[in-house]
Amino acid sequence: MFATTRFLRSSKYRLFSSLSLKAVAKPKTALTDPFLLTEPTEPFMNPLETSTSVSASIKDHISKYQDARPFMLIAGKSLIINLFCYPQSKGCYLADADGNKYLDLHAQISSVALGYNHPAILNACKSDEMVIALANRPCLGLLPPTNWPEILEASHMRVAPKGLTNIFNTTCGSSANEIAFKTAFIGYKKFHGIPDTISEEELATCQDNIAPGSPELAVLSFRNGFHGRTMSTLSATRTKPIYKAGIPAFPWPAVDFPKLRYPLDRFEQENYDEENRCLDLVKAAIETNPIPIAAMIVEPILSEGGDLHASDRFFQELRRITKEHNVVMIVDEVQTGVGATGKFWAHEHWNLDSPPDIVTFSKKMQAAGLFYSDELRPLVPMRNFNTWMGDQPRSLIAKAILDEIEESNLIALVNSTGKYLISHLKPISIRYGRVVKNVRGKGTFIAFDCPNQEIRDLMVMLLKAEGVLINASGSNSVRFRPPLILTKTHINAFLPRFESILNKIYKQFWPQ
Amino acid sequence: MFATTRFLRSSKYRLFSSLSLKAVAKPKTALTDPFLLTEPTEPFMNPLETSTSVSASIKDHISKYQDARPFMLIAGKSLIINLFCYPQSKGCYLADADGNKYLDLHAQISSVALGYNHPAILNACKSDEMVIALANRPCLGLLPPTNWPEILEASHMRVAPKGLTNIFNTTCGSSANEIAFKTAFIGYKKFHGIPDTISEEELATCQDNIAPGSPELAVLSFRNGFHGRTMSTLSATRTKPIYKAGIPAFPWPAVDFPKLRYPLDRFEQENYDEENRCLDLVKAAIETNPIPIAAMIVEPILSEGGDLHASDRFFQELRRITKEHNVVMIVDEVQTGVGATGKFWAHEHWNLDSPPDIVTFSKKMQAAGLFYSDELRPLVPMRNFNTWMGDQPRSLIAKAILDEIEESNLIALVNSTGKYLISHLKPISIRYGRVVKNVRGKGTFIAFDCPNQEIRDLMVMLLKAEGVLINASGSNSVRFRPPLILTKTHINAFLPRFESILNKIYKQFWPQ
Repeated sequence: MFATTRFLRSSKYRLFSSLSLKAVAKPKTALTDPFLLTEPTEPFMNPLETSTSVSASIKDHISKYQDARPFMLIAGKSLIINLFCYPQSKGCYLADADGNKYLDLHAQISSVALGYNHPAILNACKSDEMVIALANRPCLGLLPPTNWPEILEASHMRVAPKGLTNIFNTTCGSSANEIAFKTAFIGYKKFHGIPDTISEEELATCQDNIAPGSPELAVLSFRNGFHGRTMSTLSATRTKPIYKAGIPAFPWPAVDFPKLRYPLDRFEQENYDEENRCLDLVKAAIETNPIPIAAMIVEPILSEGGDLHASDRFFQELRRITKEHNVVMIVDEVQTGVGATGKFWAHEHWNLDSPPDIVTFSKKMQAAGLFYSDELRPLVPMRNFNTWMGDQPRSLIAKAILDEIEESNLIALVNSTGKYLISHLKPISIRYGRVVKNVRGKGTFIAFDCPNQEIRDLMVMLLKAEGVLINASGSNSVRFRPPLILTKTHINAFLPRFESILNKIYKQFWPQ
Repeated sequence: MFATTRFLRSSKYRLFSSLSLKAVAKPKTALTDPFLLTEPTEPFMNPLETSTSVSASIKDHISKYQDARPFMLIAGKSLIINLFCYPQSKGCYLADADGNKYLDLHAQISSVALGYNHPAILNACKSDEMVIALANRPCLGLLPPTNWPEILEASHMRVAPKGLTNIFNTTCGSSANEIAFKTAFIGYKKFHGIPDTISEEELATCQDNIAPGSPELAVLSFRNGFHGRTMSTLSATRTKPIYKAGIPAFPWPAVDFPKLRYPLDRFEQENYDEENRCLDLVKAAIETNPIPIAAMIVEPILSEGGDLHASDRFFQELRRITKEHNVVMIVDEVQTGVGATGKFWAHEHWNLDSPPDIVTFSKKMQAAGLFYSDELRPLVPMRNFNTWMGDQPRSLIAKAILDEIEESNLIALVNSTGKYLISHLKPISIRYGRVVKNVRGKGTFIAFDCPNQEIRDLMVMLLKAEGVLINASGSNSVRFRPPLILTKTHINAFLPRFESILNKIYKQFWPQ
């Protein structure tokens, strides 16, 4: 019935999963891409900016209605107050209300795919199709427009991970993971050979939120994993405790994610043992947790938790263990998906024998949702359903992003820019070894550690003062999350500023 | 600090809560509104449509990727298969792929405010501001655009319910209620006179999802209430058990919502007693539930649950009881908000002495979120936070909708059209008393009951065959959820078709 293989062969849209994303075109560079030629050539900090800046006054205005304190907290300090001018931003450069132009390696918490005001996206946003979709928001699950199958094919289904032929569209990463959990719970009986029927007793008891209708089932997650902040996804999230304190949670377990030592080639045996220790914890949790574990959720790189990596073998073993125990494997690609790791989906790096059961996405796709296997299609309709069932305008933007990724071969660009950045960060981590540690990453999804949170926060602040926006990550890490269009030219603008602030940090902490 | 009263006085935007929404302009009619003059004059059913319709073939196409069974389930039957042509739809008329034009009293599960392709919304969608907002989705909570305070004022803050001066923007009704619950839990200590600090033990234990960091706290809801289908909101939802079965739930209690008997004036004493019975249940739940109740959530009219109404006194008592017990009162206006009940917010009908603590919205606002009191502002920032923190393009659409509601005085139109509809439904419910019972409603938010689900489903199907889309509600009710632009002309197109199908139903069930 769901003959996706057939469809993929006949589709007019090329697939560019790892299978097909060959280097069809030479990647554009800042010198050859007419769009990037319109960018600033380097960050610009307005010397006239004062403490009574435009941003500060607008921030006071916003704070009447909305909690504006996060604006001041990029690096845990209250000094950083900015409002931004999106019409004046371009490519990898973000303009603020005080005349500054930042090189943006932060990219709205990793959610900007093509930089600011990319012509491909602007054109999509000006199209008649977009205006109709925005002006007439339909129930996509109940009264869909006639062009909905085309939009699905041209956007999400075109990059459906191998083996996952079904989609459920949502509006953000948290809701994608919420529905992923529900899909796993609904599939629990089928996965465990229990007849997939719903008894009268279940129908009656679920209205009282008690078993058997509301069964005790768990999602297993990893410490330092982040999966969202709605209440069930927050129960699986284990990054900052301030996100969780005071909020009731489902009694779901977590196990350690490997803490690898760097450089990897020097600590091969230790890391192998560390991964085995964590795999044993996963097995033990699945086998002994008092509440049956229906699903395991994992990010390919634990991003909010400090850019924690594990080997392909570790993830292959996770797939083997979950298969063996009939546990639904959910790969949360909200941050890692859409090309940033040098493959379209980060989990493609693993070369799994058998695909994950569910892959969730959001951020750089602009639209959110989950891909899932035929096996997880609920037997009865409407078990997962809501009014809007996705966001058509954002699916149209996703299509524009995917077109541009393909046409400009941006995944090849990500790989070459990422290699270039790593090739400079590694020597820096030797020259400034007290501050820049454990350089790691795939594509431009790169991070390093600082010795502690104080120095990390100072680094993020100093970089901002030099015109570079970058993300803190975990307790003491810094992560690069640039748009996919980042080139060597941007890295060349970053590096001298980075070295300059490293010298400042050295002078402050190690004055001799 | 959050001087909303001051702001409201000085704002260039007029407020049109119940306080200010005077009849400033004579409502438009189908004969005077140039937009409505471009609508079809009545439903059109294409006589050429066959069982191998265009819709059916597109539906097969979609079903490769997305569960298409809901399209076939509008009335619980498999006969109704349609895909829709939004560019060809206009006002209250929705066009499908088979050449039919339906009078749409369903309005995408109550989420279309101004009908299809309204010029006010089309203009907003074509604006430069919209293109920039769509093409450059920012973290509105972290790196907001300079015009964000203006957008907030021109859209949501302009209709902030009395006493609720803070906003948290989300992307759908479920996530609005999720954040409302979290806001109530975060405020629990403050509401109960417990020092609002977070201990080391709480920070440590919340990472294991156990108390005291993850406290046992509950949300009280009503049977037949609907609050969403993410996992915490689903724990508060008590409509169809198929939504809940198989999904783990928080152990939260529910109590009966009054079942009023109609006509109200005949059953005054019975209804008063019934409401008191339910109020006693609320008190008992708050006082004796094994898990402390942090919040109570209620819809002004239980919509998905069958359009259940209660008196203003009932809701005044709910506010009194929740105040007395320091329980956060959340009013879920996702379906009732934005004018459909004849006031901007349905809870304005109640004339509360003291406002609810939280009001959630979505659907007709197109943007979603919650308004909340100053008292519920978390002491520490980032306790509620996410990447996008709302949806700027939808806030721009909300602004256009609010402008049009005000300029065309649509709330007065809702009241006059609603009265006209009721004045015809009441006699019909006498003439066809076996089928149309308990006509009730406010504004155009009108419903009636059928004797059973079979006849109700048949009615929805027969109306569709006559070119009228309408919502089923609860087990045996039919609800009118038209756009706010509905006029007497639309009602006049509906009534003869309604009588025609009532005659058919009578002939089928009572042939003598």
